[in-house]
Amino acid sequence: MLKLYDFLLSGNCYKVRLLLSLLGLEYESITVGLKAGEHKKPPFLELNPFGQVPALTDGAVVLRDSQAILVYIARRYGGTDWLPEEAAALGSVMQWLSTASKEIANTVATARLHYLFGTAIDITTVEKQSYALLQVMDQHLATRHWLASDRPTIADIACFPYIGLAADGKLSLDAYPHIVAWVERIKQLPGYVGMPGL
Amino acid sequence: MLKLYDFLLSGNCYKVRLLLSLLGLEYESITVGLKAGEHKKPPFLELNPFGQVPALTDGAVVLRDSQAILVYIARRYGGTDWLPEEAAALGSVMQWLSTASKEIANTVATARLHYLFGTAIDITTVEKQSYALLQVMDQHLATRHWLASDRPTIADIACFPYIGLAADGKLSLDAYPHIVAWVERIKQLPGYVGMPGL
Repeated sequence: MLKLYDFLLSGNCYKVRLLLSLLGLEYESITVGLKAGEHKKPPFLELNPFGQVPALTDGAVVLRDSQAILVYIARRYGGTDWLPEEAAALGSVMQWLSTASKEIANTVATARLHYLFGTAIDITTVEKQSYALLQVMDQHLATRHWLASDRPTIADIACFPYIGLAADGKLSLDAYPHIVAWVERIKQLPGYVGMPGL
Repeated sequence: MLKLYDFLLSGNCYKVRLLLSLLGLEYESITVGLKAGEHKKPPFLELNPFGQVPALTDGAVVLRDSQAILVYIARRYGGTDWLPEEAAALGSVMQWLSTASKEIANTVATARLHYLFGTAIDITTVEKQSYALLQVMDQHLATRHWLASDRPTIADIACFPYIGLAADGKLSLDAYPHIVAWVERIKQLPGYVGMPGL
């Protein structure tokens, strides 16, 4: 049985729940008490020494990092639909996994942490960087329905949560109609599930 | 012919040069004038709208992001040695590509930017986060020779440059003997090339 070390309000945990739901996979969700600091103590640190949710176990397989977990689930249980095998198509997906891992995490997701959980940051700079990122993504989506392919892939699943949750960081998507349309397309996928704020 | 849009002092460009050299692949290196801001203007922005080096073209294939470029090259030209196909092994590599993309970029690489190029940051916080990361990596490497497998993979190539360049950010590796040994193992790989600072 897949076990997801989970937290309801984490967009990174949510993206794993979303892929599991889209693939119709059963799993056990184990809530990690972030407010009590459980992610920074054993036994959780044995699953992920970086002290971050999510983590996933699948029998003897133990994985940290939401993007890596998406890759594992897609390859193990999703055929090649959600993660292509051919080099250029795989590279195209990987570009957006990196964008989710760094640019989205450092901008829109950080603004959300600031307003929702009180994390101290330079909000003016983060807001400016967030809108610069949204501008690039909006232009990219102006000529295509999905980020990395002509069908949805884990690139979309990885980038979607914190973009869709932009309002939690007091960021408006109004000027980005192609992003708004893409968010709606994801919400229409068979098996879609939401999270608080989505 | 592979064309790498390149910058000598960029660790992200270097990791691509390193893999190309380890695989014995010929390529054309095209220097992007970062000091003149060429990466933030057309025509470079058409290759990478995020305005960052490296970018790679291979015929009609255009890729941004150093981790995605490593994935493409490894899958297209490296068989399964540098990037395994099996789900758990692939996920294991992906964990470290995310670490390179985010944690290493936000810590040791940022400290280097500060001291080498004068980027304004909260250096005290970044230094603390850098040593926390090095501690986790050192413990991970205490029981294994390579980050993600029993042989070198692109996980090692992705993480190596900015860890190996830690001294540029006035960070010492002295307390991390397993990292130091891993850096030396990478330097012994057939086809290894260095960069200034390595």
